[in-house]
Amino acid sequence: MSSNYLICTGCQKEYPLDRIFPRCDNCFEPLEVRFVSTKKFITDKALFSRNILEHYAHFYPFSEIEQKLSLKEGFTPLIKADKLSQLLEIDNIYLKNETVNPTWSFKDRGTYVGVQHALSLGCDTIGTLSSGNMAVSVAAYGARAGLKTIILVSADIPSEKIGPILIYHPILIKVSGDYGQIYYDSLKIGRELGIYFLSSDVPFRVEGSKSIAFEICEQLDYKVPDYILIPTSSGGNGRGIIKGFLEFYEKGLITKLPQFICIQLAGCAPIYQAWINKEDSVSTIKNPVAIDNAIANPFPPSGKALLRLLRKFRGIVTTVSDEEALSGQLMLAREGIFAQPAASVSIAALQKLKAEGVINKESRCVAIITGAGIKYTGILEKHNFNVAASTLEELKDIIISKLAD
Amino acid sequence: MSSNYLICTGCQKEYPLDRIFPRCDNCFEPLEVRFVSTKKFITDKALFSRNILEHYAHFYPFSEIEQKLSLKEGFTPLIKADKLSQLLEIDNIYLKNETVNPTWSFKDRGTYVGVQHALSLGCDTIGTLSSGNMAVSVAAYGARAGLKTIILVSADIPSEKIGPILIYHPILIKVSGDYGQIYYDSLKIGRELGIYFLSSDVPFRVEGSKSIAFEICEQLDYKVPDYILIPTSSGGNGRGIIKGFLEFYEKGLITKLPQFICIQLAGCAPIYQAWINKEDSVSTIKNPVAIDNAIANPFPPSGKALLRLLRKFRGIVTTVSDEEALSGQLMLAREGIFAQPAASVSIAALQKLKAEGVINKESRCVAIITGAGIKYTGILEKHNFNVAASTLEELKDIIISKLAD
Repeated sequence: MSSNYLICTGCQKEYPLDRIFPRCDNCFEPLEVRFVSTKKFITDKALFSRNILEHYAHFYPFSEIEQKLSLKEGFTPLIKADKLSQLLEIDNIYLKNETVNPTWSFKDRGTYVGVQHALSLGCDTIGTLSSGNMAVSVAAYGARAGLKTIILVSADIPSEKIGPILIYHPILIKVSGDYGQIYYDSLKIGRELGIYFLSSDVPFRVEGSKSIAFEICEQLDYKVPDYILIPTSSGGNGRGIIKGFLEFYEKGLITKLPQFICIQLAGCAPIYQAWINKEDSVSTIKNPVAIDNAIANPFPPSGKALLRLLRKFRGIVTTVSDEEALSGQLMLAREGIFAQPAASVSIAALQKLKAEGVINKESRCVAIITGAGIKYTGILEKHNFNVAASTLEELKDIIISKLAD
Repeated sequence: MSSNYLICTGCQKEYPLDRIFPRCDNCFEPLEVRFVSTKKFITDKALFSRNILEHYAHFYPFSEIEQKLSLKEGFTPLIKADKLSQLLEIDNIYLKNETVNPTWSFKDRGTYVGVQHALSLGCDTIGTLSSGNMAVSVAAYGARAGLKTIILVSADIPSEKIGPILIYHPILIKVSGDYGQIYYDSLKIGRELGIYFLSSDVPFRVEGSKSIAFEICEQLDYKVPDYILIPTSSGGNGRGIIKGFLEFYEKGLITKLPQFICIQLAGCAPIYQAWINKEDSVSTIKNPVAIDNAIANPFPPSGKALLRLLRKFRGIVTTVSDEEALSGQLMLAREGIFAQPAASVSIAALQKLKAEGVINKESRCVAIITGAGIKYTGILEKHNFNVAASTLEELKDIIISKLAD
């Protein structure tokens, strides 16, 4: 037997390493791997030291930070999507996978930075108005920091969305009334009571989103991509990402800016409506109909601010339908990433803009995959999935026939 | 105004940086952060270069690996849990947070390593038998690798668990019959048809779990903890973690081994039963009743192999009840981590073993948080959560009264 082999954990019988069957032919106990290594090992703490406020300290106005508040948000993978490239006929597509953050969405970056700011001001209570990713994120970081945490949700929140917020022990209040009005009232109450409401447009939440841009630059060796695709709801994340690229540009770390593409769902696209109508202000969408609330803010608080940035830096605003978002979700899964529909709009937009000739084959594109599909599994019923059934006796034949399909 | 300030994105009015209210008093547009930095920025690609098979290449028998198959699994945070330390009166508790893996459980490590092995053997089809974390992980990596992927699930799988597997486009077959028999038959069919079944006991899946041990050592600067708490179902992850510590020990990177604590749910504890009865073999549990299938394998394929390791290296096997697991879930959320009950058993066990005097106050403990709570939100109904309701008019008063509670 060579020095590389499998060995039975029971009877010690040896097998070649290129065996598929995982158990011993003799005693049927599981096998394990043995080999003589020829490679070096060098320990590297940098692989684990990730903290956006430390690594990018130059770009944040904190004299000191509280390490313990971090759940190691950010430093998310940039995944090359070769199958999507082939499918969409675009040479280079990268996926910035925000679904592996501590609460499985990009919100954790801004929440972490916002909580640092809240603590530096001596606040003992934070809050937010959200029924989705932001509520979960603020509840988690509020718990981590030991702060009182007020989560306001709309009265019609689906019950399955409440548990993943309440698990972190916040004060959760269902508020009935106009959602836009609740938003503004919460800020007013926050000012009166000294509660730091970490909403989507809070300056330090926007600062958190900057780190997405910084990381993309580092991950691409400062070769700035042609396009950044940003699923856009309230507009805060887009503001942060653009601000991040601008700050790297101003510091001379990059020599050009990418083109920013903001994507909304057609059923709730207030920023897009203002964009095509060349309006400076954003009108509230009445009766929005959209598949995923995470990208369906009918009165985006950062809408006007985002429009100003997009006009200044030759941005693009587009929409995709619910069906296109679902199709984008399936396409992303081909790369091994299960995104929520709100995040999948970026892939749907890539397909649409390529077909329209806006994006060409040679483009280098980065799609921000803002949040995890596992958060909204009810939506999966909209896909027509195919499930086979088998008894044990017919299993082999059914596998053979399925493989032949 | 100082050089550090907030500025209105609309009218450019400036405000001090220590302001909570996020919008302009003048035009009500959102503010943003401006400041002059005094800190240095040094780019560091190592922060993003994580690949377990590259970094730990010395410990893996691959002459070359396919980078593209990786979704950047592993290199998960080790989170210091000071609130838990205080609560449980144990000086040092660390949480190895596997919930931020690409499919939100530890399974991705072994799946990645297993797929590398499958491809090195020229296999074009992989498979697994699972209704939970492993099914999702194998489906994701199979899609990523462009392999045909067969996922066998038991016929009584809850419908909400099917979508998160099917999103990755595998061949999914519901198989009726005895689950233990399906497991053995799937291996047999795999051998006959050349399908690489990546089940829990596959040697290269176990190799993937080794990296959890390697990372803990690096993250703790090679100061080996006293205890590693491992939620235990099929036994494969425990085998891998122990093997990892042994390999670092044999290489001289660490000077002692931790004590390994395997935890099962009381309603399905075949390894624990064999342990306390001093038996070498593990008997199947008839009619298991456990809150989370992810830790309720009634016929653990690696049970005997794990028992041998635990006996050799002075391990501990214990159980906790469903209620204790749920209590552990709530405790973990206080640290900002939402774990599935299967993962929360490690905290419940810490509490139990501390009360029993097995673990003392001065101990350094690492709990493996194996998978994300967001995967099984139905279980949250078992918690008695408190939700307040409010109209917009009474919101301020209700917030004041809740904060006073």
